[in-house]
Amino acid sequence: MREVAIVSAGMTRFGELWESSLRDLFVEAATEALENAKVDRIDSIYVGNMAAGQFVGQEHLGPLMADHLGMAGVAATRVECACASGGVALRSAFLEVASGASDLVLATGVEKMTDGADVTAVLATAADQETEAYHGITFPGLYAMIARAHMQAHGTTDEDLAWVAVKNHLHGAKNPKAQFRREVKLEEVMKSSMVSEPLRLLLCSPVSDGAAAVLLCPLDQAKKYTDRPVKIRGVGFATSSMALADRKDTAFLDSVALSAERAYKMAGIGPKDVQVAEVHDCFAIAEICCIEALGFVPRGEGRHAARTGLTGLGGKIPVNTSGGLKSKGHPVGATGIAQAIEIFEQLRGDAGERQVRGARIGLAQNMGGSGASSVVHVLERV
Amino acid sequence: MREVAIVSAGMTRFGELWESSLRDLFVEAATEALENAKVDRIDSIYVGNMAAGQFVGQEHLGPLMADHLGMAGVAATRVECACASGGVALRSAFLEVASGASDLVLATGVEKMTDGADVTAVLATAADQETEAYHGITFPGLYAMIARAHMQAHGTTDEDLAWVAVKNHLHGAKNPKAQFRREVKLEEVMKSSMVSEPLRLLLCSPVSDGAAAVLLCPLDQAKKYTDRPVKIRGVGFATSSMALADRKDTAFLDSVALSAERAYKMAGIGPKDVQVAEVHDCFAIAEICCIEALGFVPRGEGRHAARTGLTGLGGKIPVNTSGGLKSKGHPVGATGIAQAIEIFEQLRGDAGERQVRGARIGLAQNMGGSGASSVVHVLERV
Repeated sequence: MREVAIVSAGMTRFGELWESSLRDLFVEAATEALENAKVDRIDSIYVGNMAAGQFVGQEHLGPLMADHLGMAGVAATRVECACASGGVALRSAFLEVASGASDLVLATGVEKMTDGADVTAVLATAADQETEAYHGITFPGLYAMIARAHMQAHGTTDEDLAWVAVKNHLHGAKNPKAQFRREVKLEEVMKSSMVSEPLRLLLCSPVSDGAAAVLLCPLDQAKKYTDRPVKIRGVGFATSSMALADRKDTAFLDSVALSAERAYKMAGIGPKDVQVAEVHDCFAIAEICCIEALGFVPRGEGRHAARTGLTGLGGKIPVNTSGGLKSKGHPVGATGIAQAIEIFEQLRGDAGERQVRGARIGLAQNMGGSGASSVVHVLERV
Repeated sequence: MREVAIVSAGMTRFGELWESSLRDLFVEAATEALENAKVDRIDSIYVGNMAAGQFVGQEHLGPLMADHLGMAGVAATRVECACASGGVALRSAFLEVASGASDLVLATGVEKMTDGADVTAVLATAADQETEAYHGITFPGLYAMIARAHMQAHGTTDEDLAWVAVKNHLHGAKNPKAQFRREVKLEEVMKSSMVSEPLRLLLCSPVSDGAAAVLLCPLDQAKKYTDRPVKIRGVGFATSSMALADRKDTAFLDSVALSAERAYKMAGIGPKDVQVAEVHDCFAIAEICCIEALGFVPRGEGRHAARTGLTGLGGKIPVNTSGGLKSKGHPVGATGIAQAIEIFEQLRGDAGERQVRGARIGLAQNMGGSGASSVVHVLERV
């Protein structure tokens, strides 16, 4: 396998972007990535997208996006893995470059969620249709059950959950691309309206539009496009039971643990080597579960991390310096690419007010459904 | 890049399979492929599927299918490229094995179309939403325009179109997996009800349920799983303008030509070396355009091929020996894999009454939308 690098990135801001269509968002992010690398010809495109068919009546995104980018002809593959679609698109692009089949591959993610569809119902199609969605459960309910299980097993409190939101909004306030660029106070979170007990509004990521893109090439060609390439050192992708009820431990995200194990093994590192991470905080409880499954904290102790500052800027392992899904926003198909971009910028020293000083190894973890899929990328400054 | 082989296949019959759900269909085909190779552990799965979100309210097919196959944990990626989803899933699986990242990868396709959705409207989401579908056009209309353009440019007649259906039904009558296992007469086709002028009912592929799966591994490991591996010698994937109106020549499928050019180049062969082919006859006119774009006949002369026997069993280049989409059926996400299976069986000498004697090199061509995407695989008996 050839070694692979990320050489440039592009991203729209995240938010309710009424003025932009699905294709507009894609073209904005993709063009920025290509211009940053001074490239006008590529071999292949991957488009991570969960549900444009349901959201805006548009499937077949590969050729559509290639066409609107002015690149009709190029290979263009749409990849779907619910909210992990972006991360899986990045992995697919990595494999195409690693194989030697292509040299320049654009990995992108895009979602347009605010055009009128019943968003919660569309997202619920990422759950098990026969044993979950059909019976009316949606994702706030599924993650509420995960939160309850975590509370029961490990003593996690409402306040523990709230600290995750406080931390991520603190980070997101420093991110010009974030949907909610403002801090929130602990009591504000704890008094926000109840969505699905114990998950309150400010413990849930928002509905967002947005797109993100990164350009990949063989590591040994990377200097043609940038003086600061970032190597993809490890990739891990894993699945778990689709239905939450089928998991051995509701409070433990085993797909996250397995995807991390695979990525660490490929990278030849362990969790202690990671200096900055983006993890999938679609709900505050998810971040707590993810940092446990990634091995950043012992199992059951994730609940303390945000409060003690361990995962805040300046802490031992800053998590979601971008603001995370909570504050930056969560256009589901774009999220995995946006996470990789935050780590890319951190490792290049381009993260501005959010910069983790001296970060050399970072990790991005992107999850689908209630954790039925997870993909982890370990990135390294070279 | 490592050389890659197909070592086994599994497939449901195609048709209106009321008794089987989306997941049932997948598991039946995947299990057959695994059992044929005597394998109970694989590294990765690709699921080609166009629109299960719209057809049956289910996205996130990767983990769902891995789970129901009893393989939760394994990497599992859903790939969508409209009616070329299966072909693109095969290409993705090829790249993963070629890269060295995985040894045993299952490439599958599945679609459940008969569960009550408005099929024509769902399929139309593979067209350009803003410039085509929104204004009410669906695929019979788009292909009718291609047919009209071909008639005008090359003198193609209603009878030329009808001969394609006659030939493919003649082939499909010999295929135990085909949805319509019966011959049709020329006059029957020409008197069938009009769908979108000049396309009559028997010139259109049907609405189908079905699934198909092939198992890939490095060529140098193939003998562990079968005594008759089939090598993937060339792969080509190309896109074109999404909207039909944006093409330079409505009667010519440029994505098919470009995908073939890429596959031939990689395989080091030309169209004359192909001894059996499956092409994307979603409508009769599509087969005529495809055999021209693939270089089997000169441009403008595809209209004669079925009538003269050139593309029939016993002809110089038998096309759609399986019955094609027309007679075998067209569960859209499964089609690309089913095409590869027909060629796999032909090259192994397993095609029974449909056998093309002595075939050593075969080709499968799978198309999305009105030709905005096309993927070609060149397979070879080794």
